[in-house]
Amino acid sequence: MDVEWKQNLLSERTETFRPSLIREILKASLGKKDLLSFAGGLPDPSLLPLDVFRSAIDKVILDKSGIALQYGESQGYLPLREWISEFYYGGFGEEVSPSEIIITHGSQQGLDLIGKLFLDNRSRVLTESPTYLGALQAFQVYSPSFSTLTLEKDGVNLSELDEILKKEDITLFYTNPVFQNPSTYTWSESKKRQAAEILDSNECFLVEDEAYRLLDFEGKKHSSISSYRKRKDLCIQLGSFSKIVSPGFRLGWMRVPSGIFGKMILAKQANDLNSNQWSQLVVSEFLKECDWESYLSRIRSSYRERRDLFAETLKSEIPDFEFHIPDGGMFLWVRIPLTDSFLLFEETFKKGLAFVPGREFFPDSSDSSFLRMNFTVLSPSDMQKGVEILADVWKNYPREGT
Amino acid sequence: MDVEWKQNLLSERTETFRPSLIREILKASLGKKDLLSFAGGLPDPSLLPLDVFRSAIDKVILDKSGIALQYGESQGYLPLREWISEFYYGGFGEEVSPSEIIITHGSQQGLDLIGKLFLDNRSRVLTESPTYLGALQAFQVYSPSFSTLTLEKDGVNLSELDEILKKEDITLFYTNPVFQNPSTYTWSESKKRQAAEILDSNECFLVEDEAYRLLDFEGKKHSSISSYRKRKDLCIQLGSFSKIVSPGFRLGWMRVPSGIFGKMILAKQANDLNSNQWSQLVVSEFLKECDWESYLSRIRSSYRERRDLFAETLKSEIPDFEFHIPDGGMFLWVRIPLTDSFLLFEETFKKGLAFVPGREFFPDSSDSSFLRMNFTVLSPSDMQKGVEILADVWKNYPREGT
Repeated sequence: MDVEWKQNLLSERTETFRPSLIREILKASLGKKDLLSFAGGLPDPSLLPLDVFRSAIDKVILDKSGIALQYGESQGYLPLREWISEFYYGGFGEEVSPSEIIITHGSQQGLDLIGKLFLDNRSRVLTESPTYLGALQAFQVYSPSFSTLTLEKDGVNLSELDEILKKEDITLFYTNPVFQNPSTYTWSESKKRQAAEILDSNECFLVEDEAYRLLDFEGKKHSSISSYRKRKDLCIQLGSFSKIVSPGFRLGWMRVPSGIFGKMILAKQANDLNSNQWSQLVVSEFLKECDWESYLSRIRSSYRERRDLFAETLKSEIPDFEFHIPDGGMFLWVRIPLTDSFLLFEETFKKGLAFVPGREFFPDSSDSSFLRMNFTVLSPSDMQKGVEILADVWKNYPREGT
Repeated sequence: MDVEWKQNLLSERTETFRPSLIREILKASLGKKDLLSFAGGLPDPSLLPLDVFRSAIDKVILDKSGIALQYGESQGYLPLREWISEFYYGGFGEEVSPSEIIITHGSQQGLDLIGKLFLDNRSRVLTESPTYLGALQAFQVYSPSFSTLTLEKDGVNLSELDEILKKEDITLFYTNPVFQNPSTYTWSESKKRQAAEILDSNECFLVEDEAYRLLDFEGKKHSSISSYRKRKDLCIQLGSFSKIVSPGFRLGWMRVPSGIFGKMILAKQANDLNSNQWSQLVVSEFLKECDWESYLSRIRSSYRERRDLFAETLKSEIPDFEFHIPDGGMFLWVRIPLTDSFLLFEETFKKGLAFVPGREFFPDSSDSSFLRMNFTVLSPSDMQKGVEILADVWKNYPREGT
């Protein structure tokens, strides 16, 4: 039967829905076991200590199955919010009460709920350029316009920030200041402090995405921009368990100021009632049972080794490619001597290798000479194989202007 | 510090956000252990066979932790979609391919995604009156208008349906035709067939919420309205694991026609990337390991006993209250000789007893002389105690007109 669609069946906002190449690659890699992928922001599941995890599950089943197998509070499971308050924010010297925290299905859901509360077709979102693709996907559903700031190695250009905030009616500024996805750049403390002042004096709402904040391989503690602001009522901070525990539990959180807290809870309820109780209890017990600091150290040193190996392999196999070596995170942001890395992506993908072409990370999907390459999930030998495929394609790739 | 809000900081749609008394009661009951609650649509967690559940978890940890602890496909875990296709739809004789199914964080998320795709302030949603509160919450975020149909014991009034579809520009019709929440009414097969024809001839999009479809205590199989429609491209069906396995896993699904499938996947990605992998794998293994038919029978007969006990207790303690005894579901929908049950709710709540006052289930929150009372989670003795509290408050409650 032919599908005949009524005119205007769908809402106007569906016209701005943005596809994600990363999700397409992930789907392809599930069907195609021999695809080597540098594309995802995937942690290594083998770093999760299965014995501690198992004992956490046993505890939940024995003592707490009545809670774990039921609906829960929309705000999230209190012991998990207490852990976030004490060990996450407390570890950075930030005072955040469990009552300010909402547990979400990944920080992606936080971005969607922010879109719901703040954005419509009259809104304007300010982002770094490049910026996190998932934020673009979440926000574009609500049809705002975008303005962008040049991202330098130590944070955004501050005079641009001040100028845009004075000139344009910005609804919110979205930033990812520590090991930014995709650029891996980290704001300097001085820029964070100055940006906080500029945001305060322009009364700008800040959405600070901290997905990689704990993944500094040297254990350095990075302040949040929010912590420097006087107007904490105009800050949301987003966090995630996906990069430090496991994406399998689909859990993140947001710190939400009291002025919009009630509305945010209603948006969460309307979206999915409450976050997965079973996962919240298991993660909460796991965090209680594991030795948090040594667990973190183990992840950090494993990823540091892989970063080093990846950077060395890439440098020796493809000296044309340029990149900055970040102190943390999960990616290298690689500049290649081409104006559009997407065509290169299409070639390597045919040979069984994936990365994310840079244009995915620009609000206007402008062509880009970057590749985002993950180093935290492939084994050393697959990493080597992947780089060899890329080098091989590159060797025979037509150079521009030749 | 005083919070000073910028004018128009939030989007207009936040003005129509709808609170949920059910969620407030749930939150209160978590803090207040002695609150007896007939309010939630809560299954009894003790009906989940913990040994089968545990062995399912062991399997996932041993054989599939690499998949369970990683990001997954936006559409959902294929073996779970295959189970839904074969045992859920197959059990009703409906042919639905796993490729038509999207796994969601509860059917609530399905409702939100539908709102995202279809609704804005130019849209008009048609519902039964009363209707499911969660659907009102999900849809109202997108600021549509509402029209309602009188719900009779065997389904909506069909001439009203035809008339409204001819007169008004309806974006979609939302219905919950089997053991409707809150009324417990179930559409007759004849009304479903006729409604399908009316919907087809008016080219109306149907959203059919089947949360309680498997909970017929006599095991009777109820057809879907969708199965009678010729225009299957204008039907979405929503299902849930919350009522038959556990709400703790926060998993549901939707059957989505191909014409909007791609857009729905983008909306899901923008919302939370993918559904909880860990829960999807555990539930999938659990369903494989449990004897599905005998598991369902056990739940059905346990709930049937409680329904009988509850109905008898209520009848003998408060003969003023009127209700229909449903063949399934989780509620009694009780009519009391008052024009507004909310005031009664406030009184009983002070005495440690909760139910949901009927007005929560009407799009215009009109006063109502109904109570929705759940019978699936309280123990027989708590049920008795709860009814006694209610009887006691009622005995001394000021009658209207006296």
